[in-house]
Order: sequence, then structure tokens, then C-alpha cells
Amino acid sequence: MRFVAFTRNGKRGLAIEDADGALRGLTEDDVAWPGDLDDIVRRDGLAEAADVLKSGGAINRSDINVALPFRRAGKVLCVGLNYADHAAESNMEAPSFPTVFVRFNANFVPHGGSLVKPDVSDDFDYEGEVVAVIGKAGRAIARENALDHVAGYSIFNDGSIRDFQLRTNQWTIGKNFDNTGALGPCFVTADELPAGVAGLRLTTRLNGEVMQDATTDDLIFPVADLVSHLSVGMTLEPGDLIATGTPSGVGAARDPQVFMKPGDVCEIEVEQIGRLRNQVVAA
Amino acid sequence: MRFVAFTRNGKRGLAIEDADGALRGLTEDDVAWPGDLDDIVRRDGLAEAADVLKSGGAINRSDINVALPFRRAGKVLCVGLNYADHAAESNMEAPSFPTVFVRFNANFVPHGGSLVKPDVSDDFDYEGEVVAVIGKAGRAIARENALDHVAGYSIFNDGSIRDFQLRTNQWTIGKNFDNTGALGPCFVTADELPAGVAGLRLTTRLNGEVMQDATTDDLIFPVADLVSHLSVGMTLEPGDLIATGTPSGVGAARDPQVFMKPGDVCEIEVEQIGRLRNQVVAA
Repeated sequence: MRFVAFTRNGKRGLAIEDADGALRGLTEDDVAWPGDLDDIVRRDGLAEAADVLKSGGAINRSDINVALPFRRAGKVLCVGLNYADHAAESNMEAPSFPTVFVRFNANFVPHGGSLVKPDVSDDFDYEGEVVAVIGKAGRAIARENALDHVAGYSIFNDGSIRDFQLRTNQWTIGKNFDNTGALGPCFVTADELPAGVAGLRLTTRLNGEVMQDATTDDLIFPVADLVSHLSVGMTLEPGDLIATGTPSGVGAARDPQVFMKPGDVCEIEVEQIGRLRNQVVAA
Repeated sequence: MRFVAFTRNGKRGLAIEDADGALRGLTEDDVAWPGDLDDIVRRDGLAEAADVLKSGGAINRSDINVALPFRRAGKVLCVGLNYADHAAESNMEAPSFPTVFVRFNANFVPHGGSLVKPDVSDDFDYEGEVVAVIGKAGRAIARENALDHVAGYSIFNDGSIRDFQLRTNQWTIGKNFDNTGALGPCFVTADELPAGVAGLRLTTRLNGEVMQDATTDDLIFPVADLVSHLSVGMTLEPGDLIATGTPSGVGAARDPQVFMKPGDVCEIEVEQIGRLRNQVVAA
């Protein structure tokens, strides 16, 4: 199942996309409205919601703005340095355990939304990533069962203000500027994709030029390992997001460096999931 | 105003404490119930809620369990290395900008609740801290106005699983084991305390022995600086928590090291705020 959250005439909506890319769905004014994806995942109601949405009206893409698939994740756990070539380009050792920092929902913009370059920095960098969405709670989850805890996947631009990220040894500040991350355009359930999203091509383009081009086969810690390791002491809950890390090719590691500036367009495409597109604007 | 959240017979309650330590308040079944502190702070309703609670019944401390003052903070921003002597004992440089990591509400226990030593580690350390609660939203807040954005203060035990904290260069995993942080016992509005909680003595005791003994005058970045720096790119919202960092004396830096084990009692006392007491249990 492929879900697309949207707004239409100021109302929240949710649609299901069929194999031809056509959308059917409902808005919050409809009596059958199943709630948003945050709620649906929490109540383990994806299949039921999909059935309800299929009975809704056709949704014309020109009438809607795509919205964030998830706006109220309890935790957004971001994995750094999870592709060996990116760890190397960042002059950091490939880790022996996942390197985890946190972002807040509040700084995400949807597909088509504007990423905001802050006034105080010119070092606004892209990071294309696959994000896994937890569907079933668990703690100390064994690797063998870990994929049972993943409801599905989306795409993430882990936009980073590099100078602030590296100003101290913890990355939080530079990873949480308002309107610097992007999530979407859709949420694809795990059953539609290869197990653990293995072998999918991830491509980041800045103004049409390919900046990152990798396969999820190159993840140091694949999705099952991440779910297992991240739950070692912390209960993962339905709706939690795990951003799985970015491959090489980020702007800060280039010579000369390439940062995003107002007017730029950044697109992250992950095979079988979709293409997340955002323009950059000045603060 | 001094607020104490509690549960009584399974119902949530909130009380106001007078100068003699007596409590008056309401529970969620009362028609005048003002909501919990997360909601009250978000609607800027502390003074009004205090008036309503004063009209409630006397609350007998032996009838209640103290509850978390805040359970739904949008962000819990924790500052590391914010006392020079603690940075030195940790063999880290005193930072030139606040070092910020994130904890999740879900791993906090209230005053009187049990801190849980996990099975997978014996390196469970205490960290006594003052926590500031944001009362007014803002971004890029000037230092001069920063304290206007703080509604009040509480006490925090930033309990840390040291081996997991230091397993990679980001501390998230070791700072977010379930039931390893403590918050409370009360929430004290800023007007009751010295500006920016300057000059308050902070003492951590493990089984009655003093392990940390410092004054908030020694903060490298005082509260006003933290609010200003942390909001450089990220909007702070009412109900967000800023844990201001711990002084020297943590268990990991001692020779020999001292970690918390089942049966231990950890108490953190901050002058004019209160005393946060927790026992340690096995997982």
C-alpha cells in the first residue's frame, strides 16, 4: 500500500495510490475519515484504512498539496555515518555500533515545501536517506524479528547546517534548524518493498545534477540491525521514525564544497518508493 | 508558585504548595480540573491554574504518589559539559557553544519512582541537574530577553548508561534507556527563584553520601545563554525542557568508579526547588 497525505482547501486528507499512480481518498470532513497516518500506524490500522480510502473519491493531484506523512512521531532517531564511503568522506571512522542523533518533527517540511536556508549560516547541506517507520512496539528486539516491527518506509532529506552541527561534539543544534528537513512524498508499506529495503537505488540531485548515487545494500547497519541495536535499552513505539543514514556525496565533503542556496531544487529519489522534491528559500 | 503533580487512587491530580509545604489541589474528576502542567504551560495559564487549585481540597501527602510534572514536553534538550570541573573530569574540553543532546519523555520516572538498572550494563551513572521549562515560544532569542521565555524550574537526574553513551560519538543511545531519568518532585515558577536560578546549591547524594556539590553560579552557559544559543535556529515552544548540565562528581569519573546498583537511593537536592529522590531496581 502506498499512502499519500495531503491538504486540500485547508483540510487534511489521506489517499491511497494505485499501481497506475491514481489517488483515491478522504479528507477530515468525511465521516469515514480514518485519521492521519500517525494515528493509523499507532492503532495498527493500515490495511483497514487502505480499504476505507479506496472507497473514497478520486483525488486530483492538481487540487492538493502533498503533506507530511508523519507529523507526530514520538521519536525521530537519525543514524549517522551508516554508509562506509560517507564516513570516510567525513573523516570519521565507520562505527561499530549505530551513531544516533535526534531530530524533531517540527523542523520537517513536506514534499513540495520550502527548505529554509537560515540567515546565520551558508553551510546548508542535503542528505538523502531512507526512513523506516516502526509499526509494532518492542525493546531489545532480536535481529531475526526486527523487520516485523517495521510498518513501512519513506524518504528523508536530513538537511544539515554543517557549521552548527560540528560546533560541538553533539550534532543536535545543526540538525534541528526550523524548516531544514524534508519527509515524503509518500509512505510505502513494507510488504511492497524488498525485505529491509535492500538493494534500492538512492539518488540525490541538486538542480538536476546527481550528487549522491548509492544503493541501500551499502548500509553498514541494515534496517534489521538498526531496529535491533536502537531498541537495546529504549522501547521503540509505533510511529517512531528511523532515518537510516546518507551515502557519500554530501556538499560539505566536496572540493569545492557545494551548499544549498535560495533558488536551488533538491530531489531525493529512492527506487520503488518515490521522489522527494523541495526548493530552497531564504529565511 | 510551587506545583506538585500527583496520582491518587489512579486519578491524575495537581496541587499547589504553600509556604508551609501544605498542598491544596484537584484531580481530573473535579469539574474545575485545570489540566496537567504540560497543557497549563502551553496556554500560559499558570497563575489562573494556581488560583483554581488553591480553591481545591487539602491534599494529604500520604494519600498520593508524586507524578512527573511534565510528561509531554515537545523537546527535551539536554546540555552536556556545562560545568568546567565536570568537563575536565570527563577529559573533554569546556565547550565554546552549548553541547546539546536529546532525551525522550518516555524514559523519565517521577520522584519516588524506580530507576531501572538495565541487564546489559553495570555502568548506570547519576547526573544531578536543574531543568528550565520554556513558557513562551521564541527563536533567535536575545540573551537580554531570554529569561522572559522561562516559566520555571525543576530538578533532573540525567541517568546515563555510560558504556552505551560513549560507544559512538553521539550520546543518544546511552542517554535514553527506559526508566533511567528522573524529573521532579515539583515545578517552581521563575518568580519564586533568583533570576536564572543563579547561586543555588546543587547536591547529589548516593545512599546518603554526597557525590556532587556545586552551585549553579558555576554553569559555563547560564540559563539565559542556553535559551539564547539553543534557539539560534530552532523555535523553542512552551513546555520544552532544557536540562542545564551536571557538575563534577559523576560516578564514571571517580577512582574507583561508582555506579548505581539495585537497592541504591539517589537524591538530588537543589536549594529553593526541592529534593528528587529515587531508588534503583534491577531490570
